[in-house]
This record gives sequence, C-alpha cells and structure tokens, in this order.
Amino acid sequence: MRFSSLADLAAACGDVPAGDAAAAAAAAARDATLTKPAGSLGRLEEAVAWLARWQGRSPPRLERVDVLVFAGNHGVTAQGVSAYPAAVTGQMVANFAAGGAAINQLALIAQAHLRVLPLSLDRPTADFTAAAAMTEREFLAEVETGFAAVSPEADLVCLGEMGIGNTTAAAALAAALFGGGGARWAGRGTGVDDAGLARKRAAIDDALARHAACLADPLACAAAFGGRELAAILGATLAARRRRIPVLLDGFVCTAAAAPLAKRQPGALDHAMAAHVSAEAGHRLLLEELNLRPLLDLDMRLGEGSGAAVAVLLLRAALACHVGMATFAQAGVAEKSPD
Amino acid sequence: MRFSSLADLAAACGDVPAGDAAAAAAAAARDATLTKPAGSLGRLEEAVAWLARWQGRSPPRLERVDVLVFAGNHGVTAQGVSAYPAAVTGQMVANFAAGGAAINQLALIAQAHLRVLPLSLDRPTADFTAAAAMTEREFLAEVETGFAAVSPEADLVCLGEMGIGNTTAAAALAAALFGGGGARWAGRGTGVDDAGLARKRAAIDDALARHAACLADPLACAAAFGGRELAAILGATLAARRRRIPVLLDGFVCTAAAAPLAKRQPGALDHAMAAHVSAEAGHRLLLEELNLRPLLDLDMRLGEGSGAAVAVLLLRAALACHVGMATFAQAGVAEKSPD
Repeated sequence: MRFSSLADLAAACGDVPAGDAAAAAAAAARDATLTKPAGSLGRLEEAVAWLARWQGRSPPRLERVDVLVFAGNHGVTAQGVSAYPAAVTGQMVANFAAGGAAINQLALIAQAHLRVLPLSLDRPTADFTAAAAMTEREFLAEVETGFAAVSPEADLVCLGEMGIGNTTAAAALAAALFGGGGARWAGRGTGVDDAGLARKRAAIDDALARHAACLADPLACAAAFGGRELAAILGATLAARRRRIPVLLDGFVCTAAAAPLAKRQPGALDHAMAAHVSAEAGHRLLLEELNLRPLLDLDMRLGEGSGAAVAVLLLRAALACHVGMATFAQAGVAEKSPD
Repeated sequence: MRFSSLADLAAACGDVPAGDAAAAAAAAARDATLTKPAGSLGRLEEAVAWLARWQGRSPPRLERVDVLVFAGNHGVTAQGVSAYPAAVTGQMVANFAAGGAAINQLALIAQAHLRVLPLSLDRPTADFTAAAAMTEREFLAEVETGFAAVSPEADLVCLGEMGIGNTTAAAALAAALFGGGGARWAGRGTGVDDAGLARKRAAIDDALARHAACLADPLACAAAFGGRELAAILGATLAARRRRIPVLLDGFVCTAAAAPLAKRQPGALDHAMAAHVSAEAGHRLLLEELNLRPLLDLDMRLGEGSGAAVAVLLLRAALACHVGMATFAQAGVAEKSPD
C-alpha cells in the first residue's frame, strides 16, 4: 500500500476492520466444554479467543509466525543519550544475520520465522532536537516498508526493533502523545549512566518545545520524533490490522511506535497484544495509557522482538490446550455441581 | 529414604545442601559476555543462574524435565467445600492417563516427562474438621512416596497435584503456618459458590481450633490438614533439595504443601521457584510469606502442574539464549562505552 500524504495515511488508519466476534465466541464455547474448571487457564484462554477473533477462525492456528525486526539509526545519538555507540546498530544487524543474537535463539525455540529489515542504516534520521527526524516523504516511505513486510500468509506477527538511541525517540513520542516530559518517559535504555539520563531527558524536553506545533497530530509526531524503525512498526501494525492478523508488540519502543494509531482511533490496537512489560521505565506507563495488559513481566529490556518471541511460547501452550484437551463428555468427567 | 517419625523427617529437613555458588557465578559471567546489554534478559538470566546453582553445573541443562502430579482424596469434601464431587479426582486421573487433560498438552509442548501418581484414591484422608487428616504413619508413607518419585537423573522437577477439596486443605495448612483464618486464606478453588465459600472458611476455622495443639510444629500441621498429595509434594521437594535438583512449584496447593519445609528452616525452598501466581485467592499472599517471586502471572488456577509446565517454556527460552548467543568478541559488536 502506498501513502501519498499524512492525510492519506490517516484515512487508511481510520478504515480498519473489526474482529470476528463469532470466531471468538466459538473458541470460548469450546473452552467451556474442556476438562478444567471454567476459565481456569486464565489468560491462556483469553489469548486463544483473541487469536480466533483476529484470525477470523476457530480454532485459530499458529502455523506461520513471523518475527519482523526493523533496525534504524538516530541522529539524536549526537546528544549523548545512549550507553552504546551508534555503530552497534549495524553490528547487531550483522549479529542477527549470523544467528548470534538473543532473538535468533528465541525465534528458533518459538518456531517463528525471523526477518530483519535494516532501514537505511547509513542515513540516520535527523537529530530531532534540531529538526524533524524525518520529512513527511521519508516517514511515509518507512511506513510503506513496514506495511509491505507483513505477509498475508502469517497467522501471527511479532514486531521488534534495533536502533541505538531509539528509547530516546520512543520516550519523546510517548511524551508528545500522552503528555509529560523527559522526566516522565525517559529510562536508561541499554544502560546509560546518570549524566546520560539527564542529557536524554533534556533532549526530549528540547524536542517537545521545538515541535510544539505538531503535537496535536499523532502521525506528525511519529515523523518528528520516531526513527525509521518506529515508522515501519507503525506501518506493519496497520497492515496486520487491515489483513486481520494478530500482532504481538514487544517492548517500549515497539509500543510507542504503534501508539499513534491508538491515539488517532480508539480500538486501533485491539488486534495487538502487549507481549510483555519491559523494565525500561516508560513502558508500564505507556501500556496503562493504551489500556494494554502485558502477558509477561520478566524485567526484560532487550528489544529485538525478544519479549514477543517468548510470548509466542505462551500462545503455543494456550493453543495446544485448546485443541488437544478432551471435553467433559469425551473423558467421562463429572461437571460442576449445579450452584 | 524412610522416615521413622516426624522427628526423623525433621532431621532430614535440617540436613540439606547449599547451592553451588561457583556454578551460578560462572553462568552469570558467561551472560555478561553475550551480545546484549548487561542484565537485559532480566529474569531469564536469573533463572539460568538459579538452574546452574542447583544443578551444580554451568551451563545448566534441561535434557530431562519431569512433571510429577500427585493425586489424593480429601475427607473434608463432606463439608461441602468444593464445586465438584470427589469422584472427579479419579476421573481426572483417568483423563491424565488417556492424555486428555491440560497437563498432557503442556507437558508435551514443554518436552517434559509426565508422571501421575494417584495416592490411595479409595481411601480419602479423614475430615480434618473432626480428626487429623492423616496419622503420623500415613503422612510419613506419603512423604516417602513423593521422595522416591524424584529421579536423580532429572535436571528439573515440576510438581503438581489433583484432588477435589485440596484448596481447603492448602488454605488450612497455610493458615496454620502463617496465621489468619479461613477468611484470609480460602478462595473459590474450582469455583465454589458463596455458600460453599462460607462453608470452606468455617471448616478451616473449625480445624484450626481442633488442631491448636500442633500449630507450632509445621510437619505436624502437614499431617493434620494436608492431603496425601500435599505430603508427597513435601517429600518430593525435600528429595529434590537433597539431590540438588531445581524444582518448579505450581500453584496454591503445591506451594502450601512445600511451605512447612521453609517454615521449619529458612532457605529450605531456595532450590524451588514459584512457576506462577495463581488466581486462587491465597496464593499471592502465601508467596509473599515465603518470599517467592512468581515467574508468571496469567490468572491460571487449574493445578495439575499446569503453571509449572508453562514456566518450563520460559526456562528453555532462557537456556537457549544462554547457550546459543554469540559473545561481543565473537560477533564483533562494540561493548558499552565506559561510564
């Protein structure tokens, strides 16, 4: 899909399908017949109904699970906001290609197909304390890249990112969308020290002042603050919704990248589940703003889609129960006594 | 191992090995070299170090994972404390044998070996509102059964249970060990209604009064309130510690069953991890009393070892990262800038 302008993208964001309530109800109805107290698998049962709703299919399936990791470089690293040099983005992309990163191991164990998309790493976005990170055209091009990366064949899409400096972009974007400044949203990212954290907060506050004119437009904010990988995640999240594919969002950066969709249109992220809550300071707050309840809370803060890949394991466990368990009738187990 | 008396069992509880600090340190040292910010896999990294500590091996391994599900029947069901008839215990054991229960699907997906041990289902324990649930000899025999069920070959043992009425036994035991009565500890179990919940609370309070004389002795409490499956879980937890095998505890019943060990001796459950926190009311409270932090929080309340089996997936993910990731040196990735 091509987007000729922010207004064109906004129109596409507003034109998204609802979930399939009948498929969700059918999944819940089967769950009620299985040999366990009603609801006793908790969020695993909810997850199956959610998959059914967004796949439009009961039972749902997880035959093809894609992990899409978008990578970008950020001009704001010039402000000394990260513990790592910007060159690490490209080095980690090479590590992904060689199979040495956490997401390689996790995608393997989750039986997911990993695809890494480096986005013009040799052209970092502009330092957003001085200018918009991307022009409208640059932003829309990355949204299109993310949109195109979602295969209509996928049963589930996990979104992740890599980009030195991108927790600063994510925090600035979250601040722009939900209010509060650097003090509310900036965390230590990959492990910046106290002085670096102070620079990070200041960079966010400077940028909020500089881009005050666009704060009312969530998509314009995404162009002003977000990196290329955040724009691509926004596009992929939108594509998945339009193709009715459920999405697992990874951590803080990923959630912030998708947040403009929800800010524009309530319910726009109903097809997305928060895989986990990151240890990165702003993530819990952001999930609360978006009314997303994370599946996992493991103090992870790695990105790369790592939390999403771990959550795939839970979805596979949930689906195995849903599909494989005997019903009360099949097993000859007495049901609950009438109340 | 045979136990001739509660005093003999108490002596065995006091004679347990410490973990292997060097193995844990070696695992942590490897983690620090891997291509990720230090500590960014959070609890997954902690879990690997914990496995290493209790296996005495770095890296640890998860080649043989055993799920032991103990089943028992409870005389206290005569008090109308459960939503299901007592016959369901045996019916579910048949369902386990036929492969139709949740734990069958979860053990399969976790690549774990499931073993179900029905404990004299035709001889329910005594109604503990009227007498001790078990005599000392009956109790010790079930502790021995649980002890013997732990194979020295296991790399990890997951403990679970099945027994209509056993959340009442678990709540009474927790109350005996940590104070408070039925109102503090009783939940709805498999889904008892308001009147049943009131009966459950009253049964617990009656039993606490009847067995007031033994409340100072945690092992005597386990005999007075606990069912056969709780006694076996206590024995299995002790056996695993003595053989230095890490343990995943499942939900409320399982945690209550092991709690007398910790009450007798601080640190006695250091080799045990709480796989999850159950939706059953008393579990969160009990974990706090035991200073155990659950790995998962999924509103599950099924028992059968189901939460523990799901947690195995996380341990496998953690170990896959630990073993499979490249180091900074191998991958040619720049390390963190000096602070």
